[in-house]
Amino acid sequence: MHDIEVKKEILAGNSEIATENREVFQGKGIYVLNLMSGPGAGKTTLLQETIKRAGERFRIAVIEGDITSTTDRDRILATGARAIQIETMGACHLDALLIHNHLHQIDLDSIDCLIIENVGNLVCPAEFDLGEDDKVMILSVTEGDDKPRKYPVMFHNARAMIVSKTDLLPFVDFNMEKAVKDARRLNFDLEVFALSAKTGDGMDKWVEWLAGRIGKCRSYTGAR
Amino acid sequence: MHDIEVKKEILAGNSEIATENREVFQGKGIYVLNLMSGPGAGKTTLLQETIKRAGERFRIAVIEGDITSTTDRDRILATGARAIQIETMGACHLDALLIHNHLHQIDLDSIDCLIIENVGNLVCPAEFDLGEDDKVMILSVTEGDDKPRKYPVMFHNARAMIVSKTDLLPFVDFNMEKAVKDARRLNFDLEVFALSAKTGDGMDKWVEWLAGRIGKCRSYTGAR
Repeated sequence: MHDIEVKKEILAGNSEIATENREVFQGKGIYVLNLMSGPGAGKTTLLQETIKRAGERFRIAVIEGDITSTTDRDRILATGARAIQIETMGACHLDALLIHNHLHQIDLDSIDCLIIENVGNLVCPAEFDLGEDDKVMILSVTEGDDKPRKYPVMFHNARAMIVSKTDLLPFVDFNMEKAVKDARRLNFDLEVFALSAKTGDGMDKWVEWLAGRIGKCRSYTGAR
Repeated sequence: MHDIEVKKEILAGNSEIATENREVFQGKGIYVLNLMSGPGAGKTTLLQETIKRAGERFRIAVIEGDITSTTDRDRILATGARAIQIETMGACHLDALLIHNHLHQIDLDSIDCLIIENVGNLVCPAEFDLGEDDKVMILSVTEGDDKPRKYPVMFHNARAMIVSKTDLLPFVDFNMEKAVKDARRLNFDLEVFALSAKTGDGMDKWVEWLAGRIGKCRSYTGAR
């Protein structure tokens, strides 16, 4: 019984703060996306190209999560979008409190969409609710098509999977059909977007989906 | 740092077992639904009527979760469906380990759908992944239309909300439009079914949705 009580309290800790974050976002009508992947799958590059295509239709801000460094924030700032950096000082994922403690750095009244780029890690980030509307994960073709079987929680918890770096498909051994089939075994609702942020192939379909999610969120949330 | 590590390990505890449960279900092609509500919202009655309507198309088994007693299991057994009881011995919710430890009591090779009726509670059950495909919650019209604002995590985490006991609408002060609007502020993808298991009104739409989920699950999972 003691174990169950302790577990409940600690789970409730992150979840309660996530719920507070979510209430803030919902009160402002902001759609929030938690973007996750292993290291180097192309999260920041995807965001740069996404902002180029959607930045005129929607006011997007980005929270960059990294163990250390502000490199990614600076890449986003160069696109003209708003961005702040959270350094986790060693932690391998963001949690709801880290987000909560940095929200004052963003003018929430002037944005439609907040994208949180999590720490590059296919394991722990999947388990921490930040208060987002959607978790989206990236799997790059260079990582291999066996990842759904190895990281089931990430694939199960994601609303959408982006298969990135498709321009490299001719040079790697990646079976797209197998990767998608194995991912949908874990999550039969998973949306899938295969794209190359480098060449632009497939970007439009992803951006349209994102625009639809922002629009749907705004139609149900915001000032009462 | 220590706090973060402890939290991570404990969260991972339930989540890891839930993932194991999910792998078992997905390997067998079984759709799993975690049914939650406050006490007396009509979970067992809904299940009895659902089994009457869908029990010939799908092989359904039910796990009944209660703090104590086997009353609900006996009600399900009377419909002809398979059912087992988990007594939580005081705990206010089911967790993944409780499910795991009782799975041997069910012949998983002979079912299409497992419905887990959680302990009557609008708070804690929402936070514990059992390895299900969908969380579905019931809000009865007799409980009042203010519940989304009071129990945001449950409404946020559910795939679908059933508004039950609609036959009592003429006798209670329940604003359906407000309840649905407030619930979708928390979860803009929420499916909503208003029904009365007693009169049968609205049951067909709910049963068709459930059949669609079972079918979609089976098309992606099962033996490789």
